[in-house]
Amino acid sequence: MKWSDIAAQRCSIARALSVVGDTWTMLVVRELFNGNRRFNGLLTETGAPPAVLSDRLAGLEDDGVVSKRPYSQRADRFEYRLTAKGRDLYPVVVSLMAWGDRWMPNGEPPPVQLRHRTCGHLTTPTLTCSACGGSIDPREMDRHTSADAVDATAAER
Amino acid sequence: MKWSDIAAQRCSIARALSVVGDTWTMLVVRELFNGNRRFNGLLTETGAPPAVLSDRLAGLEDDGVVSKRPYSQRADRFEYRLTAKGRDLYPVVVSLMAWGDRWMPNGEPPPVQLRHRTCGHLTTPTLTCSACGGSIDPREMDRHTSADAVDATAAER
Repeated sequence: MKWSDIAAQRCSIARALSVVGDTWTMLVVRELFNGNRRFNGLLTETGAPPAVLSDRLAGLEDDGVVSKRPYSQRADRFEYRLTAKGRDLYPVVVSLMAWGDRWMPNGEPPPVQLRHRTCGHLTTPTLTCSACGGSIDPREMDRHTSADAVDATAAER
Repeated sequence: MKWSDIAAQRCSIARALSVVGDTWTMLVVRELFNGNRRFNGLLTETGAPPAVLSDRLAGLEDDGVVSKRPYSQRADRFEYRLTAKGRDLYPVVVSLMAWGDRWMPNGEPPPVQLRHRTCGHLTTPTLTCSACGGSIDPREMDRHTSADAVDATAAER
Protein backbone atom coordinates (compact mmCIF):
# COMPACT_ATOMS: atom_id res chain seq x y z
CA MET A 1 0.00 0.00 0.00
CA LYS A 2 1.20 3.45 -0.83
CA TRP A 3 1.25 6.08 1.87
CA SER A 4 -1.26 8.16 -0.09
CA ASP A 5 -3.77 5.31 0.18
CA ILE A 6 -3.96 5.64 3.95
CA ALA A 7 -6.54 8.44 3.76
CA ALA A 8 -8.76 6.17 1.67
CA GLN A 9 -8.58 3.22 4.09
CA ARG A 10 -11.93 2.06 5.34
CA CYS A 11 -10.94 2.99 8.87
CA SER A 12 -11.63 6.22 10.70
CA ILE A 13 -8.37 5.93 12.63
CA ALA A 14 -6.35 5.72 9.41
CA ARG A 15 -8.25 8.65 7.95
CA ALA A 16 -7.66 10.71 11.08
CA LEU A 17 -3.97 9.84 10.97
CA SER A 18 -3.77 10.99 7.35
CA VAL A 19 -4.40 14.48 8.80
CA VAL A 20 -2.73 14.42 12.23
CA GLY A 21 -0.45 11.35 12.17
CA ASP A 22 2.70 13.41 12.26
CA THR A 23 4.56 14.75 15.26
CA TRP A 24 5.10 18.30 13.99
CA THR A 25 1.43 18.59 13.06
CA MET A 26 0.34 17.52 16.53
CA LEU A 27 2.80 19.91 18.17
CA VAL A 28 1.30 22.74 16.09
CA VAL A 29 -2.20 21.69 17.16
CA ARG A 30 -1.03 21.60 20.79
CA GLU A 31 0.24 25.17 20.51
CA LEU A 32 -2.98 26.39 18.90
CA PHE A 33 -4.84 24.97 21.91
CA ASN A 34 -2.36 26.89 24.09
CA GLY A 35 -3.38 30.11 22.33
CA ASN A 36 -0.25 30.55 20.20
CA ARG A 37 -1.70 31.77 16.92
CA ARG A 38 1.13 33.43 15.06
CA PHE A 39 3.88 31.98 12.94
CA ASN A 40 6.80 33.20 15.05
CA GLY A 41 5.25 32.00 18.29
CA LEU A 42 4.52 28.61 16.77
CA LEU A 43 8.09 28.44 15.50
CA THR A 44 9.51 29.09 18.96
CA GLU A 45 7.21 26.79 20.88
CA THR A 46 7.20 23.79 18.54
CA GLY A 47 10.86 24.04 17.56
CA ALA A 48 9.88 23.12 13.99
CA PRO A 49 12.07 24.37 11.14
CA PRO A 50 10.29 27.27 9.33
CA ALA A 51 9.71 25.31 6.11
CA VAL A 52 8.23 22.41 8.09
CA LEU A 53 5.95 24.74 10.04
CA SER A 54 4.72 26.41 6.81
CA ASP A 55 4.05 23.03 5.29
CA ARG A 56 2.13 21.71 8.31
CA LEU A 57 0.04 24.88 8.66
CA ALA A 58 -0.86 24.77 4.96
CA GLY A 59 -1.85 21.11 5.35
CA LEU A 60 -3.99 21.84 8.40
CA GLU A 61 -5.68 24.68 6.52
CA ASP A 62 -6.33 22.43 3.50
CA ASP A 63 -7.83 19.83 5.82
CA GLY A 64 -10.12 22.37 7.48
CA VAL A 65 -8.49 22.02 10.91
CA VAL A 66 -7.12 25.56 10.96
CA SER A 67 -8.34 28.86 9.55
CA LYS A 68 -5.88 31.59 8.57
CA ARG A 69 -6.89 35.23 9.03
CA PRO A 70 -5.03 38.52 8.67
CA TYR A 71 -4.48 40.20 12.03
CA SER A 72 -3.17 43.55 10.83
CA GLN A 73 -3.34 45.84 7.83
CA ARG A 74 -0.11 44.34 6.54
CA ALA A 75 -0.97 41.69 4.04
CA ASP A 76 1.71 39.29 5.31
CA ARG A 77 0.54 39.09 8.94
CA PHE A 78 -1.70 36.16 9.68
CA GLU A 79 -2.94 34.28 12.66
CA TYR A 80 -4.08 30.69 12.77
CA ARG A 81 -7.08 29.45 14.71
CA LEU A 82 -8.54 26.02 15.24
CA THR A 83 -11.86 25.49 13.51
CA ALA A 84 -14.61 23.39 15.13
CA LYS A 85 -12.98 20.39 13.42
CA GLY A 86 -9.67 21.40 14.98
CA ARG A 87 -11.10 21.99 18.47
CA ASP A 88 -12.57 18.53 18.32
CA LEU A 89 -9.01 17.16 18.40
CA TYR A 90 -8.83 18.09 22.08
CA PRO A 91 -9.50 14.53 23.32
CA VAL A 92 -6.57 13.30 21.19
CA VAL A 93 -4.23 15.96 22.58
CA VAL A 94 -5.34 15.46 26.18
CA SER A 95 -5.08 11.67 25.89
CA LEU A 96 -1.52 12.00 24.58
CA MET A 97 -0.69 14.32 27.47
CA ALA A 98 -2.16 11.95 30.07
CA TRP A 99 -0.23 9.06 28.57
CA GLY A 100 3.03 11.04 28.52
CA ASP A 101 2.45 12.15 32.13
CA ARG A 102 1.90 8.58 33.24
CA TRP A 103 4.39 6.63 31.19
CA MET A 104 7.16 9.06 30.27
CA PRO A 105 7.49 11.23 33.36
CA ASN A 106 11.21 11.88 32.90
CA GLY A 107 11.62 12.04 36.69
CA GLU A 108 9.44 15.15 36.93
CA PRO A 109 5.90 15.90 38.04
CA PRO A 110 3.48 16.56 35.16
CA PRO A 111 4.64 19.82 33.52
CA VAL A 112 1.04 20.93 32.91
CA GLN A 113 -2.06 20.42 35.01
CA LEU A 114 -5.55 21.09 33.74
CA ARG A 115 -8.31 22.82 35.66
CA HIS A 116 -11.94 22.36 34.62
CA ARG A 117 -13.32 25.87 34.89
CA THR A 118 -16.89 24.54 34.98
CA CYS A 119 -16.35 22.80 38.33
CA GLY A 120 -13.19 24.59 39.45
CA HIS A 121 -11.14 21.45 40.12
CA LEU A 122 -7.88 20.10 38.79
CA THR A 123 -8.79 17.28 36.45
CA THR A 124 -7.40 14.34 34.57
CA PRO A 125 -9.86 14.10 31.68
CA THR A 126 -10.91 10.48 31.49
CA LEU A 127 -12.54 8.41 28.79
CA THR A 128 -15.97 7.20 29.90
CA CYS A 129 -18.84 5.31 28.30
CA SER A 130 -21.45 7.58 26.69
CA ALA A 131 -24.16 5.07 27.67
CA CYS A 132 -23.42 4.26 31.33
CA GLY A 133 -20.78 6.84 32.29
CA GLY A 134 -18.49 4.07 33.52
CA SER A 135 -14.77 3.93 32.86
CA ILE A 136 -13.50 2.45 29.60
CA ASP A 137 -11.13 -0.51 29.69
CA PRO A 138 -10.04 -1.81 26.28
CA ARG A 139 -10.55 -5.36 27.52
CA GLU A 140 -14.24 -4.58 28.14
CA MET A 141 -14.92 -3.34 24.61
CA ASP A 142 -16.32 -5.23 21.62
CA ARG A 143 -15.93 -3.99 18.07
CA HIS A 144 -18.75 -4.29 15.56
CA THR A 145 -17.88 -3.58 11.95
CA SER A 146 -20.34 -2.75 9.16
CA ALA A 147 -19.30 -6.11 7.71
CA ASP A 148 -20.59 -7.78 10.90
CA ALA A 149 -23.95 -6.04 10.38
CA VAL A 150 -24.12 -7.22 6.78
CA ASP A 151 -23.25 -10.76 7.90
CA ALA A 152 -25.96 -10.65 10.57
CA THR A 153 -28.54 -9.42 8.07
CA ALA A 154 -27.56 -12.18 5.65
CA ALA A 155 -27.82 -14.78 8.44
CA GLU A 156 -31.34 -13.60 9.30
CA ARG A 157 -32.64 -14.15 5.79
CA MET B 1 15.63 21.94 17.27
CA LYS B 2 16.61 18.54 16.07
CA TRP B 3 13.98 15.86 15.79
CA SER B 4 15.80 13.76 18.39
CA ASP B 5 15.31 16.54 20.91
CA ILE B 6 11.53 16.14 20.86
CA ALA B 7 11.62 13.28 23.37
CA ALA B 8 13.48 15.55 25.77
CA GLN B 9 11.01 18.45 25.52
CA ARG B 10 9.49 19.49 28.80
CA CYS B 11 6.08 18.49 27.54
CA SER B 12 4.28 15.21 28.03
CA ILE B 13 2.58 15.54 24.64
CA ALA B 14 5.93 15.88 22.86
CA ARG B 15 7.32 12.93 24.80
CA ALA B 16 4.30 10.82 23.93
CA LEU B 17 4.65 11.78 20.28
CA SER B 18 8.30 10.72 20.31
CA VAL B 19 6.90 7.19 20.76
CA VAL B 20 3.60 7.20 18.85
CA GLY B 21 3.74 10.32 16.66
CA ASP B 22 3.93 8.34 13.45
CA THR B 23 1.10 6.97 11.36
CA TRP B 24 2.49 3.47 10.84
CA THR B 25 3.18 3.12 14.55
CA MET B 26 -0.40 4.07 15.40
CA LEU B 27 -1.80 1.70 12.78
CA VAL B 28 0.24 -1.10 14.36
CA VAL B 29 -1.10 -0.16 17.80
CA ARG B 30 -4.65 -0.13 16.39
CA GLU B 31 -4.18 -3.67 15.05
CA LEU B 32 -2.77 -4.93 18.34
CA PHE B 33 -5.95 -3.63 20.03
CA ASN B 34 -7.88 -5.54 17.35
CA GLY B 35 -6.12 -8.73 18.41
CA ASN B 36 -3.77 -9.05 15.44
CA ARG B 37 -0.59 -10.22 17.08
CA ARG B 38 1.51 -11.79 14.35
CA PHE B 39 3.79 -10.21 11.81
CA ASN B 40 1.93 -11.41 8.72
CA GLY B 41 -1.44 -10.32 10.04
CA LEU B 42 -0.06 -6.91 10.97
CA LEU B 43 1.46 -6.62 7.50
CA THR B 44 -1.88 -7.32 5.83
CA GLU B 45 -4.01 -5.12 8.04
CA THR B 46 -1.75 -2.07 8.29
CA GLY B 47 -0.51 -2.20 4.68
CA ALA B 48 2.95 -1.24 5.95
CA PRO B 49 5.98 -2.34 3.94
CA PRO B 50 7.72 -5.23 5.78
CA ALA B 51 10.84 -3.22 6.64
CA VAL B 52 8.71 -0.41 8.04
CA LEU B 53 6.65 -2.84 10.12
CA SER B 54 9.81 -4.47 11.52
CA ASP B 55 11.21 -1.07 12.38
CA ARG B 56 8.03 0.13 14.12
CA LEU B 57 7.61 -3.11 16.10
CA ALA B 58 11.23 -2.93 17.25
CA GLY B 59 10.68 0.70 18.31
CA LEU B 60 7.49 -0.16 20.20
CA GLU B 61 9.33 -3.00 21.96
CA ASP B 62 12.24 -0.70 22.88
CA ASP B 63 9.76 1.81 24.27
CA GLY B 64 8.00 -0.82 26.37
CA VAL B 65 4.68 -0.52 24.51
CA VAL B 66 4.82 -4.02 23.07
CA SER B 67 6.23 -7.32 24.30
CA LYS B 68 7.44 -9.96 21.87
CA ARG B 69 6.98 -13.64 22.73
CA PRO B 70 7.58 -16.86 20.85
CA TYR B 71 4.33 -18.65 20.00
CA SER B 72 5.72 -21.90 18.69
CA GLN B 73 8.74 -24.12 19.02
CA ARG B 74 10.21 -22.50 15.93
CA ALA B 75 12.60 -19.81 17.02
CA ASP B 76 11.45 -17.38 14.33
CA ARG B 77 7.74 -17.30 15.24
CA PHE B 78 6.75 -14.45 17.51
CA GLU B 79 3.66 -12.66 18.57
CA TYR B 80 3.37 -9.12 19.79
CA ARG B 81 1.18 -7.99 22.66
CA LEU B 82 0.47 -4.61 24.16
CA THR B 83 1.95 -4.13 27.61
CA ALA B 84 0.08 -2.12 30.28
CA LYS B 85 1.82 0.96 28.85
CA GLY B 86 0.53 0.00 25.41
CA ARG B 87 -3.03 -0.72 26.56
CA ASP B 88 -3.07 2.71 28.14
CA LEU B 89 -2.95 4.17 24.60
CA TYR B 90 -6.57 3.15 24.15
CA PRO B 91 -7.94 6.66 24.79
CA VAL B 92 -5.65 8.02 22.07
CA VAL B 93 -6.79 5.38 19.56
CA VAL B 94 -10.48 5.78 20.43
CA SER B 95 -10.26 9.58 20.27
CA LEU B 96 -8.70 9.38 16.80
CA MET B 97 -11.47 7.01 15.71
CA ALA B 98 -14.22 9.27 17.04
CA TRP B 99 -12.65 12.26 15.29
CA GLY B 100 -12.32 10.37 12.01
CA ASP B 101 -15.93 9.15 12.30
CA ARG B 102 -17.16 12.66 12.85
CA TRP B 103 -15.00 14.73 10.54
CA MET B 104 -13.83 12.39 7.79
CA PRO B 105 -16.83 10.15 7.20
CA ASN B 106 -16.06 9.61 3.50
CA GLY B 107 -19.80 9.36 2.82
CA GLU B 108 -20.14 6.21 4.91
CA PRO B 109 -21.51 5.34 8.35
CA PRO B 110 -18.77 4.69 10.94
CA PRO B 111 -16.99 1.51 9.83
CA VAL B 112 -16.59 0.31 13.44
CA GLN B 113 -18.91 0.70 16.40
CA LEU B 114 -17.88 -0.03 19.96
CA ARG B 115 -19.95 -1.88 22.53
CA HIS B 116 -19.18 -1.49 26.23
CA ARG B 117 -19.47 -5.04 27.51
CA THR B 118 -19.82 -3.81 31.09
CA CYS B 119 -23.20 -2.14 30.35
CA GLY B 120 -24.03 -3.87 27.07
CA HIS B 121 -24.64 -0.69 25.06
CA LEU B 122 -23.11 0.77 21.94
CA THR B 123 -20.91 3.62 23.08
CA THR B 124 -19.01 6.65 21.89
CA PRO B 125 -16.32 6.88 24.56
CA THR B 126 -16.29 10.49 25.71
CA LEU B 127 -13.77 12.57 27.59
CA THR B 128 -15.15 13.67 30.95
CA CYS B 129 -13.82 15.53 33.97
CA SER B 130 -12.33 13.25 36.63
CA ALA B 131 -13.56 15.67 39.31
CA CYS B 132 -17.19 16.39 38.35
CA GLY B 133 -17.88 13.86 35.58
CA GLY B 134 -19.01 16.66 33.26
CA SER B 135 -18.08 16.88 29.62
CA ILE B 136 -14.80 18.47 28.62
CA ASP B 137 -14.79 21.51 26.32
CA PRO B 138 -11.34 22.91 25.50
CA ARG B 139 -12.72 26.41 26.02
CA GLU B 140 -13.56 25.52 29.62
CA MET B 141 -10.06 24.36 30.52
CA ASP B 142 -7.23 26.28 32.19
CA ARG B 143 -3.62 25.14 32.01
CA HIS B 144 -1.33 25.42 35.01
CA THR B 145 2.34 24.83 34.40
CA SER B 146 4.97 24.01 37.02
CA ALA B 147 6.43 27.43 36.15
CA ASP B 148 3.11 29.01 37.26
CA ALA B 149 3.44 27.21 40.59
CA VAL B 150 7.02 28.48 41.04
CA ASP B 151 5.88 32.00 40.15
CA ALA B 152 3.04 31.78 42.66
CA THR B 153 5.39 30.57 45.40
CA ALA B 154 7.79 33.41 44.64
CA ALA B 155 4.94 35.92 44.74
CA GLU B 156 3.86 34.66 48.18
CA ARG B 157 7.29 35.27 49.70
